[in-house]
Amino acid sequence: MTDIIEVNNIKKTQEVLPILAGKKPFFLCVIANTETAKTPGISAAGANPEITDYTPAADMEYLYFEKCKSIEGVPITPDGIPTPALITRAALELTSIPMVPAIGGLNIYPQTPYIEFGGKPGSDISLGNAVKNVQEVFQLAQRFGTEIAKIFDYIVLGESVAGGTTTALGVLTAMGIKADNKISSSLPINPVDLKKQIVGKGLKACRSKPGDFKNDPLKAIEQLGDPMQPVLSGIAIGAAKHIPVMLAGGTQMAAICGIIHALNPNVMNNIMIGTTKWIINDKSSDLKGIINQINPEIPILAANLDFSQSKYDGLKAYEKGIVKEGVGAGGITIASILASNGDISIEKIHQKIESNYSKLINK
Amino acid sequence: MTDIIEVNNIKKTQEVLPILAGKKPFFLCVIANTETAKTPGISAAGANPEITDYTPAADMEYLYFEKCKSIEGVPITPDGIPTPALITRAALELTSIPMVPAIGGLNIYPQTPYIEFGGKPGSDISLGNAVKNVQEVFQLAQRFGTEIAKIFDYIVLGESVAGGTTTALGVLTAMGIKADNKISSSLPINPVDLKKQIVGKGLKACRSKPGDFKNDPLKAIEQLGDPMQPVLSGIAIGAAKHIPVMLAGGTQMAAICGIIHALNPNVMNNIMIGTTKWIINDKSSDLKGIINQINPEIPILAANLDFSQSKYDGLKAYEKGIVKEGVGAGGITIASILASNGDISIEKIHQKIESNYSKLINK
Repeated sequence: MTDIIEVNNIKKTQEVLPILAGKKPFFLCVIANTETAKTPGISAAGANPEITDYTPAADMEYLYFEKCKSIEGVPITPDGIPTPALITRAALELTSIPMVPAIGGLNIYPQTPYIEFGGKPGSDISLGNAVKNVQEVFQLAQRFGTEIAKIFDYIVLGESVAGGTTTALGVLTAMGIKADNKISSSLPINPVDLKKQIVGKGLKACRSKPGDFKNDPLKAIEQLGDPMQPVLSGIAIGAAKHIPVMLAGGTQMAAICGIIHALNPNVMNNIMIGTTKWIINDKSSDLKGIINQINPEIPILAANLDFSQSKYDGLKAYEKGIVKEGVGAGGITIASILASNGDISIEKIHQKIESNYSKLINK
Repeated sequence: MTDIIEVNNIKKTQEVLPILAGKKPFFLCVIANTETAKTPGISAAGANPEITDYTPAADMEYLYFEKCKSIEGVPITPDGIPTPALITRAALELTSIPMVPAIGGLNIYPQTPYIEFGGKPGSDISLGNAVKNVQEVFQLAQRFGTEIAKIFDYIVLGESVAGGTTTALGVLTAMGIKADNKISSSLPINPVDLKKQIVGKGLKACRSKPGDFKNDPLKAIEQLGDPMQPVLSGIAIGAAKHIPVMLAGGTQMAAICGIIHALNPNVMNNIMIGTTKWIINDKSSDLKGIINQINPEIPILAANLDFSQSKYDGLKAYEKGIVKEGVGAGGITIASILASNGDISIEKIHQKIESNYSKLINK
């Protein structure tokens, strides 16, 4: 079994992987709230729509302390399937990769240290005009990316945004990138039509049509995006001028690639995507199909995570395509295998996830 | 001329310096506001007492952007002498040492990215009960220190706190460390009696006497300290379990040493102080005299900065003992000489300061 699957631009991934091997990255997880998540049926990142505000904060607390403070237990889907932060935590723990939460814009802040860029929580994109002070936040994040590039070998950027695939579709559509049937979902049945409908309403609300913001991605975020996007793309651009940057996530990171490519195509040679097998195998979405419209050279790597042998139904459910990705799970799994020069295998990460999950449910 | 003066425990400094040579640290500058700064005659970190709230934010903006956003120009003393952030910025710039502001507790936030720990601005220590949620903030900072120690060779911790030497005296006195005539000041004439008076009032307000909080430094901070202290000492302890930590500052860092030593003496072998020649030469204070009461083994290094040949009166004034230190100036000068393996000399840093200052005043 291959632990890291090379999905796109295999020539480039074969150049990049040896460069990253043995190197420890810095992991920043950019979190945000968007009211979009509260549309019934749109997000599985929380047991019910109202609680999605707590999901990003609780994810960060779990990563930091192996225990959430803002909620009881850990974030779960309406069906009780646990957050992918379980995967991220296990991989970080095994390799001692340092992480810090970075704030896009929140209603509920994590009870951890965090990096702030002055962003505000996002409103419902179906009303347009969803994200405040995008330009200022983007500039600060970009400057921060340049700053940390002075010292790290590479960085991994993850996200936790309930409703984030819908805002990704918003930005991609506004930029004229066809993603209607290509965007992933944390739900077992991808609410494709509902997402299209929300984005359509949003475009109407800001008197725009698909592609109107092709050359103005920050405006696309402002109208139809979420507050994670200016922070994540800003840090990525600032850092990728100097060092490799792994975008750790699924189709939300395709939107980030679109934003970065439109703002600064020169840094694309330092950008790659690290995700999970579940995203790659997903029949209801098409990460590669989105990426190919932006820049077919972007390397995509996938962690060959497999929960089919898990003792726990909550984890087994991932094999049915529930949750799939988030909180940098795929990218950090890859980074931790690379950091250990292969000494930490997917198998060891599976075992760690099982033992951490067992501690959690036996509390 | 020696660029780095070994002031205390020369045996240890001679062991440590070669270890740090060629290594690039991460610089965190912990900033806070305390109402104590607004007592007339207590602080020179601002043109007048009311504006001291802006000084830490403006210092961070200058370090990040070579330009303040929260105020016009840069922070100056009532006599027009510029902030030591000029020194820090020049040294950081020459060596590409990365820095991020960390927040102790503020009324005015910097318009930069920053790391937040949930602290609140401090009140006037003459009323006692000056700092809120010290315990929680300290715990988060400590965890953060452990986290970043996973990846850096060493870290440098600086501060910008107007009124911070008075709160340092508060904590030292509460812990029973004799510092009455040993605490430095940014003013040309050290208002020793006024500081003693404020601390005396504060002790009275919390019905305590000197030494009552000898074994409870967090309580000493809570009563008579400032919000920089739990963050800075927390990060230092978390990090110093694993890597060297340079406390970049004058007698404020002596108070931090007192706090660290009382909380976790085991980490003291990874703690050193990096300051300026002006602190060492100061007749009105006695850094070494405070350190010797805590742990005479703590290495003290001083950057041999000398502005006597400066073209500018604003900088020449440093030779008269005005300002002396702050914003990590001494420690970062030392770190940048070390990072460059001596390629960057004090002379080059002087030139950079002169040219940056000339840009500033000719704007």
